[in-house]
Amino acid sequence: MNVRKVCIAGGSGYTGGELLRLLALHPQAEVVMATSREYVGKPIHYVHFNLRSIYKNLKFSKLDVSLISKNCDAVFLSLPHGTSVDYVPKLLEVGLTVVDLSADFRLKDPQAYKVWYGYEHPYPDLLKKAVYGLPEIHRDEIRGAKLIAVPGCNATASILSLIPLVKCRVIDTDKIVIDVKVGSSEAGSKPSIGDHHPEREGCVRPYDADGHRHVAEVQQELSTIAGQEVVATMVPHAVSNVRGALASSHAWLSIEVEELDVLKAFVETYKGEPFIRIIYKIPPNYPDPKYVIGSNYADLGFALEKRVGRITSFCAIDNLMKGAAGQAIQVFNIAVGFNETLGLQITPLKPA
Amino acid sequence: MNVRKVCIAGGSGYTGGELLRLLALHPQAEVVMATSREYVGKPIHYVHFNLRSIYKNLKFSKLDVSLISKNCDAVFLSLPHGTSVDYVPKLLEVGLTVVDLSADFRLKDPQAYKVWYGYEHPYPDLLKKAVYGLPEIHRDEIRGAKLIAVPGCNATASILSLIPLVKCRVIDTDKIVIDVKVGSSEAGSKPSIGDHHPEREGCVRPYDADGHRHVAEVQQELSTIAGQEVVATMVPHAVSNVRGALASSHAWLSIEVEELDVLKAFVETYKGEPFIRIIYKIPPNYPDPKYVIGSNYADLGFALEKRVGRITSFCAIDNLMKGAAGQAIQVFNIAVGFNETLGLQITPLKPA
Amino acid sequence: MNVRKVCIAGGSGYTGGELLRLLALHPQAEVVMATSREYVGKPIHYVHFNLRSIYKNLKFSKLDVSLISKNCDAVFLSLPHGTSVDYVPKLLEVGLTVVDLSADFRLKDPQAYKVWYGYEHPYPDLLKKAVYGLPEIHRDEIRGAKLIAVPGCNATASILSLIPLVKCRVIDTDKIVIDVKVGSSEAGSKPSIGDHHPEREGCVRPYDADGHRHVAEVQQELSTIAGQEVVATMVPHAVSNVRGALASSHAWLSIEVEELDVLKAFVETYKGEPFIRIIYKIPPNYPDPKYVIGSNYADLGFALEKRVGRITSFCAIDNLMKGAAGQAIQVFNIAVGFNETLGLQITPLKPA
Amino acid sequence: MNVRKVCIAGGSGYTGGELLRLLALHPQAEVVMATSREYVGKPIHYVHFNLRSIYKNLKFSKLDVSLISKNCDAVFLSLPHGTSVDYVPKLLEVGLTVVDLSADFRLKDPQAYKVWYGYEHPYPDLLKKAVYGLPEIHRDEIRGAKLIAVPGCNATASILSLIPLVKCRVIDTDKIVIDVKVGSSEAGSKPSIGDHHPEREGCVRPYDADGHRHVAEVQQELSTIAGQEVVATMVPHAVSNVRGALASSHAWLSIEVEELDVLKAFVETYKGEPFIRIIYKIPPNYPDPKYVIGSNYADLGFALEKRVGRITSFCAIDNLMKGAAGQAIQVFNIAVGFNETLGLQITPLKPA
Repeated sequence: MNVRKVCIAGGSGYTGGELLRLLALHPQAEVVMATSREYVGKPIHYVHFNLRSIYKNLKFSKLDVSLISKNCDAVFLSLPHGTSVDYVPKLLEVGLTVVDLSADFRLKDPQAYKVWYGYEHPYPDLLKKAVYGLPEIHRDEIRGAKLIAVPGCNATASILSLIPLVKCRVIDTDKIVIDVKVGSSEAGSKPSIGDHHPEREGCVRPYDADGHRHVAEVQQELSTIAGQEVVATMVPHAVSNVRGALASSHAWLSIEVEELDVLKAFVETYKGEPFIRIIYKIPPNYPDPKYVIGSNYADLGFALEKRVGRITSFCAIDNLMKGAAGQAIQVFNIAVGFNETLGLQITPLKPA
Repeated sequence: MNVRKVCIAGGSGYTGGELLRLLALHPQAEVVMATSREYVGKPIHYVHFNLRSIYKNLKFSKLDVSLISKNCDAVFLSLPHGTSVDYVPKLLEVGLTVVDLSADFRLKDPQAYKVWYGYEHPYPDLLKKAVYGLPEIHRDEIRGAKLIAVPGCNATASILSLIPLVKCRVIDTDKIVIDVKVGSSEAGSKPSIGDHHPEREGCVRPYDADGHRHVAEVQQELSTIAGQEVVATMVPHAVSNVRGALASSHAWLSIEVEELDVLKAFVETYKGEPFIRIIYKIPPNYPDPKYVIGSNYADLGFALEKRVGRITSFCAIDNLMKGAAGQAIQVFNIAVGFNETLGLQITPLKPA
Repeated sequence: MNVRKVCIAGGSGYTGGELLRLLALHPQAEVVMATSREYVGKPIHYVHFNLRSIYKNLKFSKLDVSLISKNCDAVFLSLPHGTSVDYVPKLLEVGLTVVDLSADFRLKDPQAYKVWYGYEHPYPDLLKKAVYGLPEIHRDEIRGAKLIAVPGCNATASILSLIPLVKCRVIDTDKIVIDVKVGSSEAGSKPSIGDHHPEREGCVRPYDADGHRHVAEVQQELSTIAGQEVVATMVPHAVSNVRGALASSHAWLSIEVEELDVLKAFVETYKGEPFIRIIYKIPPNYPDPKYVIGSNYADLGFALEKRVGRITSFCAIDNLMKGAAGQAIQVFNIAVGFNETLGLQITPLKPA
Repeated sequence: MNVRKVCIAGGSGYTGGELLRLLALHPQAEVVMATSREYVGKPIHYVHFNLRSIYKNLKFSKLDVSLISKNCDAVFLSLPHGTSVDYVPKLLEVGLTVVDLSADFRLKDPQAYKVWYGYEHPYPDLLKKAVYGLPEIHRDEIRGAKLIAVPGCNATASILSLIPLVKCRVIDTDKIVIDVKVGSSEAGSKPSIGDHHPEREGCVRPYDADGHRHVAEVQQELSTIAGQEVVATMVPHAVSNVRGALASSHAWLSIEVEELDVLKAFVETYKGEPFIRIIYKIPPNYPDPKYVIGSNYADLGFALEKRVGRITSFCAIDNLMKGAAGQAIQVFNIAVGFNETLGLQITPLKPA
């Protein structure tokens, strides 16, 4: 077997830890480096207690492009937004395949970085080159790509829930409200008062409710699919799960439609997709992130209320898996020509 | 002091227990009876462990109208939907003040019971007589009323969140989506697979997403306020809190509006209301049920995204308090002429 | 009514917030000052979201002894261990009643501070003068006391669980293991990685298991009661509750004993105690902190396994109430001559 | 590869579901039957929502010994205690390898079933033949065994925590208190009031505290290792995790001992064990079930308090994995001659 040697840059956070967890069992990838500013020299399990006895000799090292270049074929960037952008050009230059989990290369329009992220993007050319790493819509472009920008959990759940509705042209594409509920691991491993256990447990807390920036990529991708501008708005809520994200995408029907037509649109859109599961009229009736925990699945379903002409499409994912590390490995597999599901054949836990 | 003697019919469930908890400290009410089919003869704390040493001599008894009539001035009905309707006429006949926590007398239109609850309402005349027990809009009618139908948690949070928007005529009143998140105590004290701890903990589970019946009363009340038909749709989600409900009411602006105008509408609508608190540009920025737990407060706030013309109004309540027992005592106080806040001056827990 | 004016020093943390919550409803106390280093000038609800609309005009101020002296009759110290000790002498000097929630004056033996807290206590004379604020054993000394050291949650639950067993001389007093389970609010309001929601939720994490310093006060108090040295050891576990602490105190019988004798010892020990509730052969069979949340109750019970001669005594409290702020107000009431239960007649929540 | 065909009898409960989850990825086992009284004819994912799209054609069937005999090489019994005993003789008769997850064949002494389980065991001869399925102490006997009684979570955690201490003869073996904390999935998938979400969430609830029957097998196994009677007592506590069990085994030293000697005893006892991990002076300092969730690991550690001569040994497991289904597959692998870790190479989730 042709094993790829990989580096996890930013390996001490939650998505870094999840990549390490997954790659430990990947039959054709080997983690040979994991970087961390804070934990240089410490063993992996010093931070990731779950990985005790799994990475026996690996220690965190500094992020050093030349060392990565020497030892690795590919690099996963689990760095903060605004940090990846500094490393990506250098990593590409030395020929590495770069799978970036930050937002730094997800938007195509350089102006959008100014509007949504508040900075002038320094590499507009690379934005063109970068592939948006959602396999369900960009699989072909991902093959062989050297720079892939992996979407985060809110965007992944939102886009996946809306593709079939946009494609089958049954909704008003200028009045979509995506109400997202997401667990605490999304906020990362750095303690904060909002995610301090006594404050976070039991909360149902709206945040960034007057304009969440992840909607920018949702609109970008859905507009391409629709062939016209899609206007969406996102209202995320912090809930007290640790893992899991649910997008409840509310839309208004533009034409009369039957449930079976919508179901057909879902089934056809996602035919053959290894990580999409559709729920229709069988328990638990609608997607619930609880039942994808630990896996790369995205569970999809919808509810149609004909009385008022409203349709809600639901997408449930594990925010660290299909919403981050799992998806990153899926696109890595595609990019380097592996079977897409390598290292990702994990059955979700239940109960969990 | 003029103490009212009261009976809790259906005292062994969660709303019954909450009424017992609150009335234990009510300075002008005394619980002299609590009924339960299952626990006749057992002390209150046999079921409500929290009330050990508080109700020392009270035992659960059978629901006997003549006994209630003999011993009580008022009765709270914490009975299942469809059961209250059988008792209410008899209880009214003997002159009792009836505070009904079920849905049996909330809707004005008898036909609506057929549509939403699947039965022919046997007492259409009483529907006219019943007052919808939301003090913020029906305080005057509640005074002296003999039959009050207390709204539940989903409806209370939904209506309170939308009154200011409907009143100030800034939204399309035919495209309102109310996305509700609610804790497990809402489902009542009877075990079920869906609320079995291993299944419920960590869930974010949409239910009745193709048409929840509580929207009927939401539309009824908002239409009256608007002076025209309001079309709303409700998508509830079971989350893993025990207590708490958040309504995120998403609407589309019909005219351009500034944040401060909306704020003004909220402030004016709820001026002088003892249990309404408005949050605007101060932590935690938006209402979160976590910070009203144990109290009768409804916390309100909103988010305006001018980019797309979307406004979301949030209302956070404790589903057993302002969403059930607390509100029941508030309307009882009003009905019998007490100070509205008696027995309800409880500061919420934090953290909890 | 003779209202006492009080200051909460360290009012922005969890015990400070709980004192504010309780005192808002205390009929004979008024909070006229609340200090905080970090939030000077901010309204109370800037930090304690639950108290919005309750403290309308109060703002956090600096800790200034002369100001406190001028405005207040008593002061509650919710300061970190090792900080109270600097303020107490000055506060006593100006004649204030000082209720200290830190550990700085709990131990009688100055040497013990060296052993358990690692510092030389600067005021050994004040240690003699300070009263250990557990009303169930020091009520008489608390009356009129000017300096009261309120025990924390682990010590309170441990001592209360063991007094009857030590008093009735049925156990080996040199082989007591107290296995404590405690919620996240015990750790305070400052974020840390161990209490970061993703790490804390779902944990069952032993800590300080090779010698927890709170055992020092447990041994001190139990030895006095026993009239001989009691040797105890404490193994605390962080669990994922927000509030609540359970001490499971395991001991070995020194003589044969019947359940009813033990029950009698519990009942007699705590006769007339307003906040002690004893559970015996009635659901939920043993104490569970879940059913005291929000209240000042300590629920007590025990299990005797005659087969092996083992007895376990359980004490369940709300760590912020009987384990901190509730107890502080109880001793304050006693100290200044009020009815002991003022401001503390709160029924616990259920479910919560 | 020599694939074994297996049946899961009692496949609709939590341990049955966990077996299905694990065996889906087992390279040398294939689930060809899963039985359920309640769900005959329904697809697997009708109950186990997590397994949607994984078992595509399998449906629940009746428990029919002759059908199992015809189609399978081995059978896993996830049946209630007292039910397995009826099927085991028949299943053995037809030559199947039987892995029983119930308590019906764990005790060697037939009298013990009367004492602890309240019934006369009908097959005392089979008790002799049955192997206690804890690989760490019975690996050799498990090889080729036809009837293996898999220990449950409380017993597994308790025994694993105590073997090194008993072996190295440093503790009093007649004064061991095992304080267990366990998640809600242990109670099974059948709803009950005690495990109803509003009642279970946030609880710390002792149960069977005056004598838990699982201590019988703990004493049986430890006595064999010690070569003398070991007296242990177990006090389990229901906590609000879904998965996870922690045994905190408190013992008193019989001789003076250094930490490094104890560490050595742990290391030597478990040398080469694929699923034992020892934690010593590295974060998180002591075992926490949180960091084994989803995996077959048992994390071990200890705390020595020389001041009082107390040692506590901790064992953290996932109750459905090393405490049930994971261990069942481990013993199945050993019994049929497979590599012991097949299907069990799963890295735990973190955070989860």
